[in-house]
Amino acid sequence: MHIEKNSFKKEVIKLMRVEKDSIGTVNIPDEAYYGIHSKRAQLNFPITDEKVHPLLLKSLLLVKIACAQANYGADNLSYKKYQAITTAAKQVYANFTDYQAEFIVPAIQGGAGTSTNMNVNEVVANRALELMGHAKGDYHFLHPNDDVNRGQSTNDVYPTGAHLALLKLNQTLITEIDQLVTLLSNLAVKHQKTLKLGRTQLEDAVPTTYGAAFSAYKNLFSRALQRIKQANEALFAIPLGGTAIGTGLTAVPQYITKVVPFLAKLTGLDLKQADNLPDAVQNTDCFLMTADAYKNLAVGLSKMSNDLRLLGSGPRAGLGELALPKVQAGSSIMPGKINPVIPEVINQIAFQVIGYNSTITMCSEAGQLELNAFEPVMFHDLFDAAQLLQKGIRTLSDRCLKDLKVNTKRCVQLTESSAEIATILAPKLGYVRATSLVKTALEQNTSIRALLKEQLKLSPAEIEKLLAPQTLLGSLNNIKKVQPTSSAL
Amino acid sequence: MHIEKNSFKKEVIKLMRVEKDSIGTVNIPDEAYYGIHSKRAQLNFPITDEKVHPLLLKSLLLVKIACAQANYGADNLSYKKYQAITTAAKQVYANFTDYQAEFIVPAIQGGAGTSTNMNVNEVVANRALELMGHAKGDYHFLHPNDDVNRGQSTNDVYPTGAHLALLKLNQTLITEIDQLVTLLSNLAVKHQKTLKLGRTQLEDAVPTTYGAAFSAYKNLFSRALQRIKQANEALFAIPLGGTAIGTGLTAVPQYITKVVPFLAKLTGLDLKQADNLPDAVQNTDCFLMTADAYKNLAVGLSKMSNDLRLLGSGPRAGLGELALPKVQAGSSIMPGKINPVIPEVINQIAFQVIGYNSTITMCSEAGQLELNAFEPVMFHDLFDAAQLLQKGIRTLSDRCLKDLKVNTKRCVQLTESSAEIATILAPKLGYVRATSLVKTALEQNTSIRALLKEQLKLSPAEIEKLLAPQTLLGSLNNIKKVQPTSSAL
Amino acid sequence: MHIEKNSFKKEVIKLMRVEKDSIGTVNIPDEAYYGIHSKRAQLNFPITDEKVHPLLLKSLLLVKIACAQANYGADNLSYKKYQAITTAAKQVYANFTDYQAEFIVPAIQGGAGTSTNMNVNEVVANRALELMGHAKGDYHFLHPNDDVNRGQSTNDVYPTGAHLALLKLNQTLITEIDQLVTLLSNLAVKHQKTLKLGRTQLEDAVPTTYGAAFSAYKNLFSRALQRIKQANEALFAIPLGGTAIGTGLTAVPQYITKVVPFLAKLTGLDLKQADNLPDAVQNTDCFLMTADAYKNLAVGLSKMSNDLRLLGSGPRAGLGELALPKVQAGSSIMPGKINPVIPEVINQIAFQVIGYNSTITMCSEAGQLELNAFEPVMFHDLFDAAQLLQKGIRTLSDRCLKDLKVNTKRCVQLTESSAEIATILAPKLGYVRATSLVKTALEQNTSIRALLKEQLKLSPAEIEKLLAPQTLLGSLNNIKKVQPTSSAL
Amino acid sequence: MHIEKNSFKKEVIKLMRVEKDSIGTVNIPDEAYYGIHSKRAQLNFPITDEKVHPLLLKSLLLVKIACAQANYGADNLSYKKYQAITTAAKQVYANFTDYQAEFIVPAIQGGAGTSTNMNVNEVVANRALELMGHAKGDYHFLHPNDDVNRGQSTNDVYPTGAHLALLKLNQTLITEIDQLVTLLSNLAVKHQKTLKLGRTQLEDAVPTTYGAAFSAYKNLFSRALQRIKQANEALFAIPLGGTAIGTGLTAVPQYITKVVPFLAKLTGLDLKQADNLPDAVQNTDCFLMTADAYKNLAVGLSKMSNDLRLLGSGPRAGLGELALPKVQAGSSIMPGKINPVIPEVINQIAFQVIGYNSTITMCSEAGQLELNAFEPVMFHDLFDAAQLLQKGIRTLSDRCLKDLKVNTKRCVQLTESSAEIATILAPKLGYVRATSLVKTALEQNTSIRALLKEQLKLSPAEIEKLLAPQTLLGSLNNIKKVQPTSSAL
Repeated sequence: MHIEKNSFKKEVIKLMRVEKDSIGTVNIPDEAYYGIHSKRAQLNFPITDEKVHPLLLKSLLLVKIACAQANYGADNLSYKKYQAITTAAKQVYANFTDYQAEFIVPAIQGGAGTSTNMNVNEVVANRALELMGHAKGDYHFLHPNDDVNRGQSTNDVYPTGAHLALLKLNQTLITEIDQLVTLLSNLAVKHQKTLKLGRTQLEDAVPTTYGAAFSAYKNLFSRALQRIKQANEALFAIPLGGTAIGTGLTAVPQYITKVVPFLAKLTGLDLKQADNLPDAVQNTDCFLMTADAYKNLAVGLSKMSNDLRLLGSGPRAGLGELALPKVQAGSSIMPGKINPVIPEVINQIAFQVIGYNSTITMCSEAGQLELNAFEPVMFHDLFDAAQLLQKGIRTLSDRCLKDLKVNTKRCVQLTESSAEIATILAPKLGYVRATSLVKTALEQNTSIRALLKEQLKLSPAEIEKLLAPQTLLGSLNNIKKVQPTSSAL
Repeated sequence: MHIEKNSFKKEVIKLMRVEKDSIGTVNIPDEAYYGIHSKRAQLNFPITDEKVHPLLLKSLLLVKIACAQANYGADNLSYKKYQAITTAAKQVYANFTDYQAEFIVPAIQGGAGTSTNMNVNEVVANRALELMGHAKGDYHFLHPNDDVNRGQSTNDVYPTGAHLALLKLNQTLITEIDQLVTLLSNLAVKHQKTLKLGRTQLEDAVPTTYGAAFSAYKNLFSRALQRIKQANEALFAIPLGGTAIGTGLTAVPQYITKVVPFLAKLTGLDLKQADNLPDAVQNTDCFLMTADAYKNLAVGLSKMSNDLRLLGSGPRAGLGELALPKVQAGSSIMPGKINPVIPEVINQIAFQVIGYNSTITMCSEAGQLELNAFEPVMFHDLFDAAQLLQKGIRTLSDRCLKDLKVNTKRCVQLTESSAEIATILAPKLGYVRATSLVKTALEQNTSIRALLKEQLKLSPAEIEKLLAPQTLLGSLNNIKKVQPTSSAL
Repeated sequence: MHIEKNSFKKEVIKLMRVEKDSIGTVNIPDEAYYGIHSKRAQLNFPITDEKVHPLLLKSLLLVKIACAQANYGADNLSYKKYQAITTAAKQVYANFTDYQAEFIVPAIQGGAGTSTNMNVNEVVANRALELMGHAKGDYHFLHPNDDVNRGQSTNDVYPTGAHLALLKLNQTLITEIDQLVTLLSNLAVKHQKTLKLGRTQLEDAVPTTYGAAFSAYKNLFSRALQRIKQANEALFAIPLGGTAIGTGLTAVPQYITKVVPFLAKLTGLDLKQADNLPDAVQNTDCFLMTADAYKNLAVGLSKMSNDLRLLGSGPRAGLGELALPKVQAGSSIMPGKINPVIPEVINQIAFQVIGYNSTITMCSEAGQLELNAFEPVMFHDLFDAAQLLQKGIRTLSDRCLKDLKVNTKRCVQLTESSAEIATILAPKLGYVRATSLVKTALEQNTSIRALLKEQLKLSPAEIEKLLAPQTLLGSLNNIKKVQPTSSAL
Repeated sequence: MHIEKNSFKKEVIKLMRVEKDSIGTVNIPDEAYYGIHSKRAQLNFPITDEKVHPLLLKSLLLVKIACAQANYGADNLSYKKYQAITTAAKQVYANFTDYQAEFIVPAIQGGAGTSTNMNVNEVVANRALELMGHAKGDYHFLHPNDDVNRGQSTNDVYPTGAHLALLKLNQTLITEIDQLVTLLSNLAVKHQKTLKLGRTQLEDAVPTTYGAAFSAYKNLFSRALQRIKQANEALFAIPLGGTAIGTGLTAVPQYITKVVPFLAKLTGLDLKQADNLPDAVQNTDCFLMTADAYKNLAVGLSKMSNDLRLLGSGPRAGLGELALPKVQAGSSIMPGKINPVIPEVINQIAFQVIGYNSTITMCSEAGQLELNAFEPVMFHDLFDAAQLLQKGIRTLSDRCLKDLKVNTKRCVQLTESSAEIATILAPKLGYVRATSLVKTALEQNTSIRALLKEQLKLSPAEIEKLLAPQTLLGSLNNIKKVQPTSSAL
């Protein structure tokens, strides 16, 4: 709003150029690198102040470079234009923050990404025109559609950009999960012998260890990582070269063959052209698969956060087994209160990612015929989900898990208090007599240990042997010793 | 499968009649009341063994009666046919279980409900033909489409049936919620003075009472009830009389005016014809509103169930404040284990209802132009949601809440242990000093009470006064005394 | 990132003050109005660059003013402090953009809103200290917790702020929907006689009018509006006065009684204090109800947008009934292509709002015991949903519906081509013969009109009469004439 | 209800045995194979008439056999009991329908599956007792918990059963998708040269072929199949041997090592014991992954069904490109109307599966500590989803795709009508002039072909060459020729 007003004021005294399309003309500030299509999109979609994600824009800049290279290599673009386009795109890429204000198209937009693609085309074209010594807007020297977008359609270029952005975001995310797995693995080793009462359905069950607990989380996130990697694999196949609806129309054969290898080299990513371009242009299941892998990770993070909050509840009227690091005062009114704010923010990130999954599912289902027009919001939510998860995991690791303490004394006390250690007696006494023992213990508010002595007349030594942790922990002792790892995979 | 094979065998030796439609002919067992359309639908949708909900079928039978009455009243149906149709429909309605096997159309079906409507038309027509002394299938004497479905379209009849079924299901559901509210209200009265430590973010907070806790649940479900009633209100306006896409085409004016009053009288429900019939035929927001009201109730039930499970956790290593009735052994291996199985089933019902809401939302969004073709699964999920909620609440009330006990001793002990009772000192000491007091209490593992004596040199009397429950409970004491209620509304 | 680096550099040469809490000390730039709690939260939640919504912050500033007034009126705050707090809060409110950078707490945060509340407390406290002639950070003269937050807890203050923000957002949203309803109402009047072929399940059905079509949309959104108003009603009851978990602890009785009337006066909103404060503090169903009302609106908008895109499809190989205004070039490669970008952006907004509903549902379900810790993301999504919907509807109205044209010639042609006009003959010929007529028409690729002449030997006059639009439109003619409206409600 | 009443009557005159547990006694009909735990569960969960899925029960019977074998092999079960248990379980398995009424536990149940496991334990125990010559209920000869459930816990047994059931369901589902892929592949070959106008955002775009369209679907479902196979892989690792919370408590080492190989042999499935049993017992991500793979398939099916319905719309006022097989009359009122009922039922199946995914996601997130108590509804929805998808695909293949016809004449006509064939001119004329050409064509209601002649003065031969399908189809011609396949993978 405010910004808008300011720019309006500036426009009044600014020199303007007139740009034209089939609908009519629009005044564009003379110094602007964007053009008529970008401006119309800005006016058409006053939905959100959020602009298209920089990573998507930068990915599209790389696409423009690769396309110019391939066109030039196919004798389909003059050397002069090739030079100007690639130099311009590289400059904008390298100095992105200086040019960021030129990308005026909102993140949530109609038009299946055409506005985003055209914004990039226009900025590159006008910067290239400058480099060639022409005025911005003199498109007969170099045209956003005919030259920068040569042999391309938003149909193939836009999802290609999203593939690149997601591959980039996944790199960071994968590293982060990998480190989380390592952290959990180390916690599992550290607490291999830390007794803990197991609870099923929130009720006292049999003993286990914090080693087993952290090891279960570790495995959960190893699999979540695996799944993100699987989804990520699918993103290496890109629709570039397909132009309109995957037909390759307007693109020359050598260009179609070469453009993806050029882009692969430029990005350092092992990209390949999709086998079936109409398929790759119209179907969005690779994005849905990514969203589902994120959801799966989110569900795991939320489950573990719930556990952390529950096990750390107290300090006096809760379970009190874990001491989460104190990172901020917990209340504006209750003095000295400390809350599990880090797991809480993870829960919220998880809920957001799960909600985004609903949105992405609906977007994917709503694709019609040769194209899916709902990619803009799909991409927005995927990018945000990837970042929320990556930053959330970093925060969780740094500010909660790294300095997590187990109150071992409390854990031993709770473990020994449980009447369910009687489970070990069931094979000998039978389920019915063991049940009666537990019932007595609970009703008489006494311990199984005491009843073994009183009712079963066992000697202290026999009792000790029977209820020794290594006995109670059953095959947990046999679990292949977890090794501390620097990398979990 | 098995059943199918058997009926096939029977069909071989059975006398068959041949029915015909624009697509061709189908053999129908001579004794069957259903006809060609029902049979085709059965063959077309071998998706599920679940048949259309009896309540929907019975509602449609009432619609058929009202329509025959209105057509007869409008001189648009002969007395003979009118008699036969209404008698037949009443017989099928009254002896529904005897006829249930004639309704062969699966619950999940394509065709926007036409198959369900035609199944009813055919069963009524053939029973009416019998009553008139004709053979089943002799449709020139009385026709499923021309006579039973006279002045009707599936477009108006099918959603009308769903309105009736939901109004019926909501009656029971509303009664059930009302009784839950009463039960919670009585628990609130009973525990008005039962101390309880409040917990925020699972961490010890200031004292409250179980009266306040139950009263908060009571209010939550009073509002959930209110919202279901609001959604229910919208269901009284029905599209009947609209015929195809709400135009009223083929229906005569007197019929259109009279049919809804006839149906209202027949059902005892205060039905009215929708003002705008094309709107009422094509839009499904009244169903979505119902689904949202169910979701809202489900969310509340799940929240309370989570609380019950948490507060009842233990018996020794959990919070142990509540004693939920023991309704079954909790484990096949752990002797004497008892689990909160009733709240657990409520959680699952809630999750199912929330999932159904996603389905219904997608169905509603997918409606196109003059009709929504996805009503069959929408109705299926709505009916199931209503029943799950109704039966769930009854189970929760009978098998968990009714005999719920509060371990008052444990509650007092936990309440007094909390260092956050120091909140009451904050206005006097200031947040900073009060914080330091709490910190000391926690670090030195002592009580606020002890510190007040040692550090602040307060006398026992002063301490008692300061920490008296009525002081700590603040304005809770001022809450308008909750009255025991027989009905909460 | 970048910003962070810059501020770091500045901090090096900046004068710093040291602030302290129970966890330790933090350096705060001397000129900062925020304090230690805000800073810790900023460091704890590096999850997103998005800050807390300005409307929520401004609402909390109003709450702080009302609380100071009520405390002063209850002799619970000195005149000097009262003056300083209210003046400071009013200044920050009035010059919000100048102070915006002081609100450093991220939108997605753990801690149930405490960080947001404390950020407001600290900014107000430090500005008040300045006004009193003290240095920022000299909290013994005026304390963020003891004075600005006096008689308050985040438990009651934070949701109160969200109520105010939503009431404000709903005002705009309600106006917008109201205008959409008017626009649709006017379109209904304008096209009352514009013939249109009805389609059910995408197949040719009987004739209707665009008047009926727009009227159905109008009704749909009238009800959506009604539902938002119902949800909005619930937001007027606020938990303010409840302090910690609704007990009112630390608040004095006169304050509790007066604070809501003060806030009502300040905001001009008809606020009232919730009857049951523990309930109002812990339950979030009023927010869920709001989210559901938004979802319902979103579903309607998406359905209408789907219809607009379908009816406007073409220009040559689609339905081609509607001409949507051309607002931008549709393709970077296909010349002259124009796409329905405005309805497309509405679909995406709808999917986003539906996804947010999933998130909010999970947040609401996850509330535990006396508080819901997941309000921050719930509020974030609600605010964004309200704005997306409001801006989306404005865009849809201005850039699509206002200048929508109906291609009446095409509509008449399609309507007359449909064989389903034979429906009107069914009552006379019977369903079977009418079916055979339709089948013949389709197979012989001829018109019903021609068959009436050839096969049924009807005269041209008889045919004209039979197939006259007013006959075909059935009771649509009887629909109470829609009146043009300036306001639909 | 009705059934309940009848059985009550029967019970009155029936001989009853009394069974006992720690809670009290329950009368069980003397002839019943189920026991007290089953009965209590039936009474505790009167939520739905739907019983536990037969496949899950049968899977558990196999588990019981394998466990008895392993226990016997480990000298942990007498030969007599081993014989009785395995014979009984095999009999019940082999004659399942005869025993089905003994499985009285409802599908939706609290208790994390204990009731289902105990129902199986009791039925096997009582049948074994009979075989041993004892009376049912004489559990001191052979006990449901001590003998049938020996070395087992519901914690490991119940999810193992679900793994087996899903592996079985996935076998059928995978075959079905495989056949769908083959069918689509054959359609792609058949229509390799069938012209079709491509549409993006529902607007006319450039030409393509139905070969490309079917090929894109084929690829989509090949990937969906791949994803289900990936999810399926994870199901081969089972938690059996873990007993309570994965500790192996009460199980002897040789049993733990041998039980999974025994089960693998029994089922013919390549089962392996999970590496980390506490992890395998508590985490449900393998089920979530399965649910996500189903959702992904559902989204694809719904997208294709939407396309089929749209492309088949008409017959006169729609796109009319496809002729879907006519499988039933489409209307109770509109004569001769035929609707796309098969794709419609697929849409509804898809929406249901997507809704189930929401439920399963919430269940998975709600797992706490060492167990997930919400598996019963998770399993219910997974089983139903698998079956709906399998039966839906069969129906879609048999009743829609197999006999699908393309109206090639209509397709050619629409393709040629499109002004967007001008895209091919853009590289030569430039985007601006090509745009102007399209604009002229649309405004003057003429064809591109005509304008090429009139305005560009091209000769008929030049025009033919320029607009020849093989030119227009661009690189589609270069797509590796799709080969007809008998199996797509």
